Amino acid sequence: MSIPGRNINPTISVDCVIFGFSTNQLKVLLIERSFTDRSGIESKDYKLPGDFISINEDLDLAASRTLEEMTGLRDIFLCQFAVFGKPDRISNPVDMEWLLETTGLEIQRVVTAAYYSLINIGETNTDFAIKNSASWIDVKQIPKLAFDHADIIEQGLIRLQLSLRSEPIGFEMLPEKFTIRDLQILYEAILDCTLDNRNFRKKILKSSYLVQLDEKQTGVAHKPAHYYRFDRYIYEKHKKESLGFNF
Amino acid sequence: MSIPGRNINPTISVDCVIFGFSTNQLKVLLIERSFTDRSGIESKDYKLPGDFISINEDLDLAASRTLEEMTGLRDIFLCQFAVFGKPDRISNPVDMEWLLETTGLEIQRVVTAAYYSLINIGETNTDFAIKNSASWIDVKQIPKLAFDHADIIEQGLIRLQLSLRSEPIGFEMLPEKFTIRDLQILYEAILDCTLDNRNFRKKILKSSYLVQLDEKQTGVAHKPAHYYRFDRYIYEKHKKESLGFNF
Repeated sequence: MSIPGRNINPTISVDCVIFGFSTNQLKVLLIERSFTDRSGIESKDYKLPGDFISINEDLDLAASRTLEEMTGLRDIFLCQFAVFGKPDRISNPVDMEWLLETTGLEIQRVVTAAYYSLINIGETNTDFAIKNSASWIDVKQIPKLAFDHADIIEQGLIRLQLSLRSEPIGFEMLPEKFTIRDLQILYEAILDCTLDNRNFRKKILKSSYLVQLDEKQTGVAHKPAHYYRFDRYIYEKHKKESLGFNF
Repeated sequence: MSIPGRNINPTISVDCVIFGFSTNQLKVLLIERSFTDRSGIESKDYKLPGDFISINEDLDLAASRTLEEMTGLRDIFLCQFAVFGKPDRISNPVDMEWLLETTGLEIQRVVTAAYYSLINIGETNTDFAIKNSASWIDVKQIPKLAFDHADIIEQGLIRLQLSLRSEPIGFEMLPEKFTIRDLQILYEAILDCTLDNRNFRKKILKSSYLVQLDEKQTGVAHKPAHYYRFDRYIYEKHKKESLGFNF
């Protein structure tokens, strides 16, 4: 999806794996790609928001630019997590022809720098999804993807799961006050597993930065649960003093 | 340091930040680079082991190949940690001329995939250091470096420190049995800080995978300390059950 006339570096690209959390599901942002297959039939698949870098364009800036151009999302914190450079990344005839069509160049090898982010879908402007056929797809129901984008998403998810285990990235997906159950649902969605309720509660409550509020749920059929909030100050303070991996 | 006649991709390179631990110091493996400066004076500086990839060469394999060719080190686990792609990475005239001399090409922009590793210097074959002017340099006394290699080392060190806080990577630098003091010295060397003895002891002993042995030091002037060993089985078991960052 390069801009005609733009001076591109056809050997280097960027790709963005944007994870979104909404209604207890982890999703990923994909772009619909239309192409004509070898038998002349109109077909479609999906790809990550991504593009070639321009000559003299910084990689990080190329990632932000591409994401905004293709999805309308801006000011998203993008973390570069890996570079994908297998010599046979572009070996599917559909991908080769699509590159020829969109760039006018015979491209045989592209090394791509991959970035990821986790955002709260509810807080983003929903207009953006209509733009450029971008849509949020459940990570458990990912359709056919272009290039090695399935692999890039898989590696991005592994990196996201690692982050969740080492940093309090999940709290920004929740409202300011939340129940332990809300937190568990978020962990289960990202880690793609079922956690034991009692164990989760016991372990997570050891975290000093999880502060119990006086307030409880109201209007629920079950026993109302306490609300908690995340205290970033306590987290940062303890993080500095921590040697990590204490269990 | 490309091989004459080799079919290189002059836009993509790999660089290896090899950290080594020895006699309580953290070092990094650097290659001496000789060049003639603008005034015709023979000069030298240092660079990371690195090279352009060959056409059709996998990035990870290019990193291993380069490391072996330039230092003799083989079978080292290399972890790709970032890609460096600022448009002005090659702006120093010395670097530009050196590239022209070694490749025969006018190269203006290279994106490099950076890899890191931590090895026990004592366990590597010491012959390798003579090869290709590779040498271990204390990370606190890094000399003038080519390109943006100072930045690459800095980022590599941050990544190494992060790993030390989230994985038991340090134990492979120590003998099978070690004292808590040995472990603290290793942590202090890698984290580049002084840790409070009592706090370190208290925190690290919470780790269930650190197993105290019946054996104590002998022939020491001070009160003999207990030996400990790292139990990988316990570590792996607890890691699976852990949600991480509990403190």
